Formats: sequence, C-alpha cells, structure tokens
Amino acid sequence: MGRWQPDARVRLQEAAMALYGERGYEQTTVAQIAERAGLTKRTFFRYFADKREVLFWGAELLERQMVGAIEATPESASALGMIGAALEAAAARFEEFREFAVPRHRIIAASRELQERELIKGVSMIAAMTSALRARGLGDTTADLAAHLCVTVMQVAFRQWVDDPEPRAFQQVADEVLAQLRELACAG
Amino acid sequence: MGRWQPDARVRLQEAAMALYGERGYEQTTVAQIAERAGLTKRTFFRYFADKREVLFWGAELLERQMVGAIEATPESASALGMIGAALEAAAARFEEFREFAVPRHRIIAASRELQERELIKGVSMIAAMTSALRARGLGDTTADLAAHLCVTVMQVAFRQWVDDPEPRAFQQVADEVLAQLRELACAG
Repeated sequence: MGRWQPDARVRLQEAAMALYGERGYEQTTVAQIAERAGLTKRTFFRYFADKREVLFWGAELLERQMVGAIEATPESASALGMIGAALEAAAARFEEFREFAVPRHRIIAASRELQERELIKGVSMIAAMTSALRARGLGDTTADLAAHLCVTVMQVAFRQWVDDPEPRAFQQVADEVLAQLRELACAG
Repeated sequence: MGRWQPDARVRLQEAAMALYGERGYEQTTVAQIAERAGLTKRTFFRYFADKREVLFWGAELLERQMVGAIEATPESASALGMIGAALEAAAARFEEFREFAVPRHRIIAASRELQERELIKGVSMIAAMTSALRARGLGDTTADLAAHLCVTVMQVAFRQWVDDPEPRAFQQVADEVLAQLRELACAG
C-alpha cells in the first residue's frame, strides 16, 4: 500500500470489467473493484477519479491519436485522406485493446448514464477533429462535415466489429463502411 | 383555473423562453413560468412534465414528421431522395417555429444538462430514421449511414442557419451543406 504498482491500472481495469459484467455497472463499488484487484481503494483513486472513468480513460487517448494522425498526414492529403488516417489510428487502438473494447461496449450499452457519457465523448471528438481539419486548411463547413463523417464511420464500423461472430480486422470493417457511405452519398 | 386554455401551451412556452433568456434556464422555476404566462402551476403540468420538456416537446413531432416524410416518398426514391425528403420536413418545421428555434438553440448551448438531452434526442432520431429506411428496403449498414448523414446535415445546417446574420431559408442552407458533403465524400 502506498507503493507504486506498475501494473495496477491494468489490474484495476480488468477487475472492474469483470465485476461490471458479472453484477452490472450500477451494482459495483470501488471497494469491490479494489478488492478483486488485490489493491486498496486509495490505489484505485490514484488512477481513476471514479468507477466511470475506468471505462473512459482511453477515450481521450483515442481522440489525441486520431487528431495526431490528421496532423501527421502529408500536406497534399485530401479531406478523405485525413479521415482515412484518423480511422487507421482508431483501428490500431481498437485492435490493441480488443479484449477491453468488446465488453466495454456491452457494459455501456446497458446503462443510460454511460451512454450519455459516451455521446459527450463523441461530441468532444468531433470538435477536436474539426479544429485539426481547419488547421489543415479545410473550410469551416467541410471540416465540420469531415469530422462528423469520420466519427459516423468509426461508430457504425465499431458496432459491426464487436457484433461480428467471425472476428475481423477493424480496419477492414471501417474500409467497407466508408465505401458504403461513399456509394450512398455519390449515387445519382 | 381548471378550464381548458386553448393557447395555454403557447403562452407557457413563450413565458419559459423569455425567462430562460433573461435569468438562465437553471435559475427559472415552473412557478415563475406559470406566473409570467398568467396561468397556474397546475396548468403548466397539464402540458409539460417539467421545465425541460418546454424545450423538447417539439423534438418528437420533428422526428415523426421526418420519418413520415421518408415513408411518403415514392417507391422509386433513392436513399439520397429519402434523406432529402426528411430534410424538407425538417425545413418546414424549423421555418414554422423560427422564433422559437433560434433562442432555444442558444439556451441549450448554455447548459450541459440540456446539451445531453439534445444528444439523446439525436440518437433517438437516428434510430427512428434507420428503421424507416430499412422498412423501405435499404440494407442495415446503408440505412444506418443514411440516417446519420441526414442528422449530420440537419445539425450542421441548423447551426449555420441560427448563426447567419442574414436570415436565409433553412432549405437553402441544408441543400448547400448536403452538396458540400457530397463533394467531400465523392472526391478522389
């Protein structure tokens, strides 16, 4: 107790996910999470503000990585190229945390409070990407639309990816969804 | 008191909007709204569940009208044609309630609780339109994407419409935003 635990964050997350799945998010307490992880409540609060943040601490990192991917595209990149780069960054992150992302999605879908929090994170992500796209010279409306399209493709692809009975690469699902979006928007 | 007031709903809405604008949404009570409208709290609660619903009772009607517009398109309509019909229904509604829609937007933008409620209404609208588009034979992913695109265009156009120093027709703004979305998605 009081010592720095190198794997404490991961242990707390795993314990929280297990308990949220077993008893439900509402019924789980921080004390139970800490106990399951073999750590103290004090250690829990060193890593997370509350039990909700166990589920959302990665969302800010995802946002930064998607924004970073937009910023790192070559100067000649088109708006669609920048959207593609942001989706590649999301794919890398989802694959890395697949074992966390899938149960997380189910837990959030079962709680209205968590869904609201997820919606707010989506709005924050759109705002951050809109700024990054504007900084790359897109007009205000185009930047706003491109950020919305990127998050739409990510969300629609994510739902397919977690529900897919045959595990597939997120990148492949996202590519297909983006192709369907283009087919839809460009018809006629 | 106790009598049916034919214009009570409108009077209560106007009183609420005036007070939300003057003192802020959080600081306004139902008693103050009723008093300003020259009605009783009891009459208020005959029309609205709480002070928040004064701002949101029209959102369900908007959703039903957009879904109805999709259902009313001819059998030969494309996905884009159905999106266009839903946007026309939204335009008609926004123009009818322009004097309500513009201050409502500012009041919601100033309150996190109201923004969350607005986000949830947006999700409900996407779900309702996705169902209507599926019922018209679109595949699951295409229906989901088309509903997202429709709400994206509506939201981006709405923000431009309320901020426009020169009042323009919502339909015109939405047409321009949809054209920009197509240009973006179909490039390359």
